[in-house]
Amino acid sequence: MKEQNTEANIQFSQLGKRMAAGSGIEDLMEDLGKTLVNSDGSIAMLGGGNPAPIPEGQKLWRERMSSLLAEEGDGFDRMLGYYDPHQGNRRFIEAVANLFNREYGWDLEPENIAITNGGQTAFFFLFNLLGDSDSKILFPLSPEYIGYSTQGLSPESLLSVPGKIELQEKPFFRYRIDFDALPQGTPIRAACVSRPTNPTGNVLCLEDLERLHAYCRAKDALLIIDNAYGTPFPNMIFRDEAPFWREGVVLTYSLSKLGLPGTRTGIVIGPKAVCRAIASMTAVVGLANGTVGQALTLPMFEDGSILDYCRNTVRPYYETRSRCAVKIVQEELEGIPFRIHEPDGALFLWLWFPELKMHSAEFYQKLKEAGVLVVPGHFFFHNLPGDWTHASQCIRINYAMDIDGLPEAIRRIAAVLRS
Amino acid sequence: MKEQNTEANIQFSQLGKRMAAGSGIEDLMEDLGKTLVNSDGSIAMLGGGNPAPIPEGQKLWRERMSSLLAEEGDGFDRMLGYYDPHQGNRRFIEAVANLFNREYGWDLEPENIAITNGGQTAFFFLFNLLGDSDSKILFPLSPEYIGYSTQGLSPESLLSVPGKIELQEKPFFRYRIDFDALPQGTPIRAACVSRPTNPTGNVLCLEDLERLHAYCRAKDALLIIDNAYGTPFPNMIFRDEAPFWREGVVLTYSLSKLGLPGTRTGIVIGPKAVCRAIASMTAVVGLANGTVGQALTLPMFEDGSILDYCRNTVRPYYETRSRCAVKIVQEELEGIPFRIHEPDGALFLWLWFPELKMHSAEFYQKLKEAGVLVVPGHFFFHNLPGDWTHASQCIRINYAMDIDGLPEAIRRIAAVLRS
Repeated sequence: MKEQNTEANIQFSQLGKRMAAGSGIEDLMEDLGKTLVNSDGSIAMLGGGNPAPIPEGQKLWRERMSSLLAEEGDGFDRMLGYYDPHQGNRRFIEAVANLFNREYGWDLEPENIAITNGGQTAFFFLFNLLGDSDSKILFPLSPEYIGYSTQGLSPESLLSVPGKIELQEKPFFRYRIDFDALPQGTPIRAACVSRPTNPTGNVLCLEDLERLHAYCRAKDALLIIDNAYGTPFPNMIFRDEAPFWREGVVLTYSLSKLGLPGTRTGIVIGPKAVCRAIASMTAVVGLANGTVGQALTLPMFEDGSILDYCRNTVRPYYETRSRCAVKIVQEELEGIPFRIHEPDGALFLWLWFPELKMHSAEFYQKLKEAGVLVVPGHFFFHNLPGDWTHASQCIRINYAMDIDGLPEAIRRIAAVLRS
Repeated sequence: MKEQNTEANIQFSQLGKRMAAGSGIEDLMEDLGKTLVNSDGSIAMLGGGNPAPIPEGQKLWRERMSSLLAEEGDGFDRMLGYYDPHQGNRRFIEAVANLFNREYGWDLEPENIAITNGGQTAFFFLFNLLGDSDSKILFPLSPEYIGYSTQGLSPESLLSVPGKIELQEKPFFRYRIDFDALPQGTPIRAACVSRPTNPTGNVLCLEDLERLHAYCRAKDALLIIDNAYGTPFPNMIFRDEAPFWREGVVLTYSLSKLGLPGTRTGIVIGPKAVCRAIASMTAVVGLANGTVGQALTLPMFEDGSILDYCRNTVRPYYETRSRCAVKIVQEELEGIPFRIHEPDGALFLWLWFPELKMHSAEFYQKLKEAGVLVVPGHFFFHNLPGDWTHASQCIRINYAMDIDGLPEAIRRIAAVLRS
């Protein structure tokens, strides 16, 4: 095979070029992947969004898989050997609907739910189902999840609005939605927020959500809320919160952060027309969804014990580490000007260095040389209409993978900042 | 929630409307799904493409999962608890490359491979990476797999050419590529064939493949070969064949038909630029792939035993049933004008009724009323430039799910044809 020759002649479509261009983030993923494979432990891994290996969770999944293997009937064989319907496993969908109805008094029917191959795929479907170059998808609170940034197939179908910075008692700050800055004339098909926000750990307060919802209703736009870290599962929110369910709201959930990212299981809850469309898109793009996440957790959704696991194990696991991480950062960065976004949830700390003397891209490289992998913040300020200095002054760290190694990692960050 | 009101106001994008429109096939999938759930066994299920539940295979996967649970180290925990790199699991990719290199003397490197969430997703990526309204994806041998029909995001980016019918010794016939009918002026970015063909079980002969490859090379187009039922795995080809690997060829494989459709595991082998792009598209669309199929089969790819399983179990299983199914059809349709496409492989029989007095859509309904679910053939004649009477005279039956029920099912088909 004359590989060289062949390579030279391959032409991609315009759409293909856009979808395959990557987002810059792929270089980081490669750094991360290589370090994971080759690491002798000397590199501190604060990048990536992998959930922590929680021993209680690992035990749960092992027990569930063992039960599937042991049980009468062909549950295990069916899980691997049969295609699910494109909407998802019927029994799992009914269990999800019943769980929300029982817990919150909603009136979900199975037709209000569709399963996807992971939460991120739900957004690829939703953004392109709804948005285009004329009627856009709005991210009303930038910085926002990096994975959204390149998912719009129509050029300029995504639009972000910078968050308003509110300084809190030191060392904290918050982003709030800048309602005065939300577009009035531009047609919007949906607004999308992650709650807790990836990367900041911000859990939008009910008041702001209601206001955002009213804005959306007035524009006949859907409000999409990404609950990848949200409530009631995985429940990585460090105060008691309920999911936000109103007219014209689409909620997405995922089994990733409660410990099953390898199964790629996303859940969309929304108007029936939207869920029907998502199911159709699953059929077109990939025929059906992976079955394993649904099969493993089915009894836990049916008896509600998934909520106990998230309430009693997942939330405390991250809440404890989040507090601990804040303390470590405060101690190790003593004397350096920095702010931490108030960590209401998720598994990140979002650090802002208002006097950073370089761009966060360069900062990332220097940190890498110093033996710390983080995610530079500028990637999360995607699809903004203009420049914003603040956008190059932040980094995201995942504190959950190795809390014991965190003090040394933060010391290395401090050393780079001091040099 | 005023569901009605909300539903009325939801607007989809042009692209969304196209992706969510379904392909008509969804109604069939729904019929199939409902029947699977509610069936009292009275409906004969000859629809769908689910592989058969082969007991030896089920035993294999059970043993593999038990090993993963039992083994030292954290293989099971890693499978569920960690994101794979977007290209796929590095060790699995190396095992696949080594297997082909060992078996066929190829020079694959890991960069020639990318994993996708199932084989169908590989085609969604490939068609849109390469094709658009100007430079199209060509299906040179229609009828062709139904799942391709709506995967082109750019309007009219897919184009089919009718196969040439060759009558063989009764009751058989074949489609051959009509090389004189292949477009000469139209720019083509890739030609795509499934081999064995879904729905016909046609395994394109080497001579025709070479000729098609030459046609593609002359047009600087890639030749994409879908080996979902192909060689060396799952090896549902009833003669000895090697995979076709040349300059500018892209091969796709899947773990579905060897018994693991629930894991959604697709494999793309091709030029590095293509595989790099596929990996990027995986990152954008869904972050990463499901891990379970790769983890379960990894040792079988590493030691090559996956080929033994396919050679010694999968192929004979389907070959025996295919012969048996042909015999049953011949006996039960005695006196009715019909032809069967020569079944070289896959798990279908493709039946042509040259004197059918109704459209295959109506035939489908009548068969359903008579208690037999099939797939009406017209769906496989997608993206044709004009009408073709033959396209409404065929049905596809899956003989593999229940060979013991096949005689009764074919008798019901015969009864409808005779009435």
